[in-house]
Amino acid sequence: MIEINKHRYSFPEILTIGFIVVIIVGTFLLKLPIATRAGLETTWMTAIFTSTSATCVTGLLLVDTAAHWTWFGQLVITMLMEVGGLGFMTFAVMGFLLIRRRMRLSTQLLTQEALNLDHLSQIRVVYLIIKLSLLIQGIGAIFLTFDLVPKYGFKRGLWLSIFQAISAFCNAGFDLFGNSLSDFKNDPYFLIVTAILIIAGSFGFLVWQDIVEYRRFHRMSLHTKLALRTGGVLVFLSILVYLITEKNLSQFANEMSPINRFINTIFMAITPRTAGLTTIPYDHLSSAGISYTTILMFIGGAPGSTAGGVKTTTIGLIALQSIATLRGKSDTVMAHRRFTQENIFRALTLLFISVVLILSAVLLLVATQALPVKDPLSYVLFEAVAAFGTTGISLGITPTLNAIGKIIIMLLMFVGRVGIYTVMFSIFNAKPEKQTYRYPEESVLIG
Amino acid sequence: MIEINKHRYSFPEILTIGFIVVIIVGTFLLKLPIATRAGLETTWMTAIFTSTSATCVTGLLLVDTAAHWTWFGQLVITMLMEVGGLGFMTFAVMGFLLIRRRMRLSTQLLTQEALNLDHLSQIRVVYLIIKLSLLIQGIGAIFLTFDLVPKYGFKRGLWLSIFQAISAFCNAGFDLFGNSLSDFKNDPYFLIVTAILIIAGSFGFLVWQDIVEYRRFHRMSLHTKLALRTGGVLVFLSILVYLITEKNLSQFANEMSPINRFINTIFMAITPRTAGLTTIPYDHLSSAGISYTTILMFIGGAPGSTAGGVKTTTIGLIALQSIATLRGKSDTVMAHRRFTQENIFRALTLLFISVVLILSAVLLLVATQALPVKDPLSYVLFEAVAAFGTTGISLGITPTLNAIGKIIIMLLMFVGRVGIYTVMFSIFNAKPEKQTYRYPEESVLIG
Ligand SMILES: [K+]
Ligand SMILES: [K+]
Repeated sequence: MIEINKHRYSFPEILTIGFIVVIIVGTFLLKLPIATRAGLETTWMTAIFTSTSATCVTGLLLVDTAAHWTWFGQLVITMLMEVGGLGFMTFAVMGFLLIRRRMRLSTQLLTQEALNLDHLSQIRVVYLIIKLSLLIQGIGAIFLTFDLVPKYGFKRGLWLSIFQAISAFCNAGFDLFGNSLSDFKNDPYFLIVTAILIIAGSFGFLVWQDIVEYRRFHRMSLHTKLALRTGGVLVFLSILVYLITEKNLSQFANEMSPINRFINTIFMAITPRTAGLTTIPYDHLSSAGISYTTILMFIGGAPGSTAGGVKTTTIGLIALQSIATLRGKSDTVMAHRRFTQENIFRALTLLFISVVLILSAVLLLVATQALPVKDPLSYVLFEAVAAFGTTGISLGITPTLNAIGKIIIMLLMFVGRVGIYTVMFSIFNAKPEKQTYRYPEESVLIG
Repeated sequence: MIEINKHRYSFPEILTIGFIVVIIVGTFLLKLPIATRAGLETTWMTAIFTSTSATCVTGLLLVDTAAHWTWFGQLVITMLMEVGGLGFMTFAVMGFLLIRRRMRLSTQLLTQEALNLDHLSQIRVVYLIIKLSLLIQGIGAIFLTFDLVPKYGFKRGLWLSIFQAISAFCNAGFDLFGNSLSDFKNDPYFLIVTAILIIAGSFGFLVWQDIVEYRRFHRMSLHTKLALRTGGVLVFLSILVYLITEKNLSQFANEMSPINRFINTIFMAITPRTAGLTTIPYDHLSSAGISYTTILMFIGGAPGSTAGGVKTTTIGLIALQSIATLRGKSDTVMAHRRFTQENIFRALTLLFISVVLILSAVLLLVATQALPVKDPLSYVLFEAVAAFGTTGISLGITPTLNAIGKIIIMLLMFVGRVGIYTVMFSIFNAKPEKQTYRYPEESVLIG
């Protein structure tokens, strides 16, 4: 809790208001004449849309980043991505540690000293997150310079390396090449460095900490185990699916060698959760590939990371719970630990509200847009999920939307990044109540 | 439990095997030469597909019912619909009452006499369900004769009335008019009688019993309250949505009066859950209308009824639970009763597996079919949900599918009708275990 003018703001309120403030500041900075290249004009809609997309690390865009914005404009975008990526991760991790501390407090008796020590470690955690994040991005940028400086010269190559490392790590999906990473489809070195940055960002701080601290899988926290397992299964499954639906990208056989096409397939399995940097035009994919990508974008990465979506732990937990129920077990267990009922309910709620939100947005978009495609449903669904999952892969319809459509996409990006829970809690301002009584149980028929 | 050849079959096994046996018997009966009209031929695929569609009360078809089948063939279809509709309802209700009895047994001490009395009432329940169902269908058929006998003569009109009353009540979606109910779009009397039959069937026995027994809403069971409320909200919401997306069916302004178009809109709000009888061609709807219909078909009707889908109680319960979680409550409450944790987990599992099943089917269909539409995704999704929800509204692609596609649709109809739980339990053969130990709890980060 932080007290301002006698009003105590809760964590969710700070996060929601904080993001709005950052977006507004970003909008004004991008509207400054020095942000736009000579001869071009930046409308208020373009400024706020770009600011929202950068802060929410999504990457859906109305104008090309390199062609439209000056170096100053690009620097503003970099800052917004960094604040959006790291700022959110820091808050999520702090919130989680706070809850875990409260839980420990309720089960164990701690002295005041222990409490203060714990409070002190909060600041240490923020410091650690920022230090580790900048370190990973720095190393990534250096690795990229080996490739980009020879190609683009020192000054431009260095700036491209920094920008792309931040965009990859923050899962922001911005690029300075004008066509995402299409120019790099035959550059495995660049793709592998980018993929590692994406993965590092999308697993988040809690996972890194466990990997650095414990190294052995069995000693890690339940959160890390669930995030790593679900993430691993998804990447493996996705490579398989894309190999089948896109036939190892056979349509690009005249542009790429088979081994490069395989590396691009692996990249395709990693980028929809939720980096959004692409090496091939997604509207060339098969319908099955597009549908599957929509699912991956919806799932996203781990919580407490730079990734969006409903999160891997949500899907992993619900899958484990479903298997447990089908096998007649009342507890959902992984690695000799039982998931809390609160976690399961939270996952269920998150999934349900996300689906309702996406479906409402799709219906609104289909109803309000005159789209240049014959059957807009799969396009609209793809674009809405790309916004909500903060993935930012586009089938190209975002710039063609009218004002209502652009606002819907912006709201989806915002809710997708700040989190349905955070936004809902800010609106409802709900406080967990002490229950003084419980109603009697009654069973209903399900399914 | 029923003992056959020293193997004790569980409820789910009986239901699954029972449905398979009925489908096979139906296939052979439909393959008999006297079932097919002179000059036409019935392939094995058409026979098994029609038998599956009738038994699973879906209504997706490869051939037109009136044009292809003789009176004998139509009679077989009627019997299959009745067995599929009533048979399943009876089983579901008995299973629920059994669980409720077990719960009562575990909380109260009952004498052997009370137990026997309860066992006796099981047979009474089956008797009551069949009696009430046939009564409602009979009254419905009589009401339909007033309209159909003057139009089609006594013999044909009577048979049409019986067939359509059964098809409507069983939410089966079959028709003998060749174009579903298109001929009746300007016949409000017919539509209203049909709508009432559909609603009666889709609420199911537990709701009727409560309405007949208690009459006052506050005295009814939690199941009935949840089913009625969710069903009511959905119908009201659907009328609103279709009024907006289809603009009171303005495209049919030259064929229908405004009041008839409004009645058709109401009919459109009722039929996707999961009757499948249609007055207008669904491929003429707006994209938003098609998307929304897909959602309605997925939800379906109440459990323990003739309707399919994931069921209104599942969606209602998850919605209530989500609101409770967002408001910081740990209990999900309606009408001064708390839902059991088992119910919530079951709803969650059902929804999750249903989504996974549909998505897998859609991916398989998109990958294996060469479809005559430009962007097949929304068509395939619609058809897959129509099969799984046993709604049977078609955008017309089912007859164009190849053998793999037809088998996928048949499997979806089967799982959709018999129930994911039932099929899964038959496969896993899971028995609820007595837990001798529990693992310690640990929290993960969600969302
Ligand atoms: K992104
Ligand atoms: K049906």
